[in-house]
Amino acid sequence: MEIYLDNSATTKMSESSVKAVMDIMTNIYGNPSSLHSKGLEAEHALKNARRAVADSLSVSENEIFFTSGGTEANNLAVRGSVYARIKRGNKIVISAIEHSSIFECCHALENEGFQVVYVKPDSSGNISIENIADAVDEKTILVSVMYVNNEVGSVLPVESVRRIIKRKNAPALFHVDAVQAYGKIPIKPQKIDCDLLTVSAHKIHGPKGCGALYIKKGVYIKPLLYGGEQEKKIRPGTETLPLICGFGAAAGELGTPAEISARLKNIEDLRNYAVSELKKISGIEFNSPENALPYILNISAIGIRSETMLHFLEKKDIFISSGSACAKGKKSHVLSAMELDPKRIDSALRISFSSDSTKEEVDILVESLKEGLNTLVKSVK
Amino acid sequence: MEIYLDNSATTKMSESSVKAVMDIMTNIYGNPSSLHSKGLEAEHALKNARRAVADSLSVSENEIFFTSGGTEANNLAVRGSVYARIKRGNKIVISAIEHSSIFECCHALENEGFQVVYVKPDSSGNISIENIADAVDEKTILVSVMYVNNEVGSVLPVESVRRIIKRKNAPALFHVDAVQAYGKIPIKPQKIDCDLLTVSAHKIHGPKGCGALYIKKGVYIKPLLYGGEQEKKIRPGTETLPLICGFGAAAGELGTPAEISARLKNIEDLRNYAVSELKKISGIEFNSPENALPYILNISAIGIRSETMLHFLEKKDIFISSGSACAKGKKSHVLSAMELDPKRIDSALRISFSSDSTKEEVDILVESLKEGLNTLVKSVK
Repeated sequence: MEIYLDNSATTKMSESSVKAVMDIMTNIYGNPSSLHSKGLEAEHALKNARRAVADSLSVSENEIFFTSGGTEANNLAVRGSVYARIKRGNKIVISAIEHSSIFECCHALENEGFQVVYVKPDSSGNISIENIADAVDEKTILVSVMYVNNEVGSVLPVESVRRIIKRKNAPALFHVDAVQAYGKIPIKPQKIDCDLLTVSAHKIHGPKGCGALYIKKGVYIKPLLYGGEQEKKIRPGTETLPLICGFGAAAGELGTPAEISARLKNIEDLRNYAVSELKKISGIEFNSPENALPYILNISAIGIRSETMLHFLEKKDIFISSGSACAKGKKSHVLSAMELDPKRIDSALRISFSSDSTKEEVDILVESLKEGLNTLVKSVK
Repeated sequence: MEIYLDNSATTKMSESSVKAVMDIMTNIYGNPSSLHSKGLEAEHALKNARRAVADSLSVSENEIFFTSGGTEANNLAVRGSVYARIKRGNKIVISAIEHSSIFECCHALENEGFQVVYVKPDSSGNISIENIADAVDEKTILVSVMYVNNEVGSVLPVESVRRIIKRKNAPALFHVDAVQAYGKIPIKPQKIDCDLLTVSAHKIHGPKGCGALYIKKGVYIKPLLYGGEQEKKIRPGTETLPLICGFGAAAGELGTPAEISARLKNIEDLRNYAVSELKKISGIEFNSPENALPYILNISAIGIRSETMLHFLEKKDIFISSGSACAKGKKSHVLSAMELDPKRIDSALRISFSSDSTKEEVDILVESLKEGLNTLVKSVK
């Protein structure tokens, strides 16, 4: 039995999403920008997919801009915002545990003269709204805070950020990277009152290579790419219609907020079960905060290097990760920001569930971790 | 019978390309950056696709960087070059008939203080190397010239550009947008001696949403996006593995240079046949130069607005275009640069062949154009 518990890296595509991609690839091959009926047919499919993604966020179709994925949407949000507001200030406020596509993008902007404040988490991985408030001032042109951290699952106080921006009289746009929250908790950009919000298809059983940026009506950001008239010139280039329609299908399957909440409750039970079983093993420490989104559980198997344990587990057809897939082998900037003991960082493991995950899978994982801890050469320095 | 002669807008995917996309979507769902075997399996597929694309250009795998398509690759080439060389000059030289992803990108750079020289074509759509030479100087940091124009098919003198850059002692990188040439004429970046070269999958019967930038070994450009370690940080973001493998399959089908040349000869015969038949119709004028790549034939049906003729033809299941799909209804900057009579611009039609195109299709198109010219209300002002 294959046990895939690396769903925060990427998910297996759903049948309906695969079907949608196939259908467009084989039947609707027109360019949505072509003026003939093959183009119109393609444009129609594009519109339906846009509506499905918009509906999943309770926003208007006109506020959804398709991109090549979460990384591009995050870069577009950050660079697009600061270049659009450069005359009003030069300060950017982000959390220190953002995804690398925000984190590295801001690093690069520091070299261009922007001032970036990285709001640190506490040792459990939580970010306090007070610390964000301390960082925001009247020169702040962007606040970008992720909804759910991708490595430890902490839920950030995104619903309080708008209040801070108003109180500080900051000329800031407010962006939320919701990639790891999308489909896992009900998301309403209007309720969060953010200007921009990123989602990605391949984390919700849709295809890799497709994401979207929600841009609130009336908010202007600069494009990253220039070219044709697609996506109202905010994101030119021939639309990746098959993937966009696969994204639409996956978004359509997320269900109502009530259904999303019900799934969350099931995963919470599963996570709590996993925690209680893992607590019985000596040598396991927990890096995720207790109030984390239960889809992500970060632990350390003290004494065993992450890679060593991963390889031990994969031989048993169990797939988890050492942290963010995007960081491939590099020391986690998230766990470092939490100031965890290097021994915990070097042995960190991320278990990430999907709604397909089962108690039986957890049992096998726990048994295997125990076996790993008992048999592997202690390799962490 | 459906007659699709809009292959420069986009092509129908080949069976093997569809199969490759499907295979990855359903069987290899890992993230290539994940450290476990699912990730390795995905990485292996990625490597094979990269080799296929590299082989199709006779370059090394390490010189191929996957992007979300031609538009992104072109933007990356242009912005990546000028930001990397900003200390050595501020002049950019491009042809006035570049694709909108180069053209608009350079327009935007003008607003950032760069000087852009747009080398004009003659009235037949050809660009002379002498005119490019006149524009290049010791402050020129980028020369970007397309291989084949997407609207009229003119073949640009890319093989002479390096000589000019050397002679003028310009600190310029040299980029070739080869999107419309790829698979149609044998392309060797090393022979052209360019630093950067763009190709796209969906123009060669591969999937939409995938392209590649060739970056010559040792050439440094700045990335457009920041994030993970993918594509050596030149293009971060989870790789669109299904599309990349679909691209690999399509690239693998392009065949040897001899096969590409043989197909070109067939298309030349077909184009010549079309021209000879079209010449018999009064009211047809030819906008493509005589030495154009035969895959593209741009004509005007004088007196009939492009859109009117397109709609007339699509009712007969014939699909051609009014110009670049990416310009959707806007006046062509290519035909304008050629200083064609507005009547010709307003009635322009682009016929673009693929190796599936037949003489029979040409006959039906020609008959239909004749009928259209005779029956449609003369609507061009």
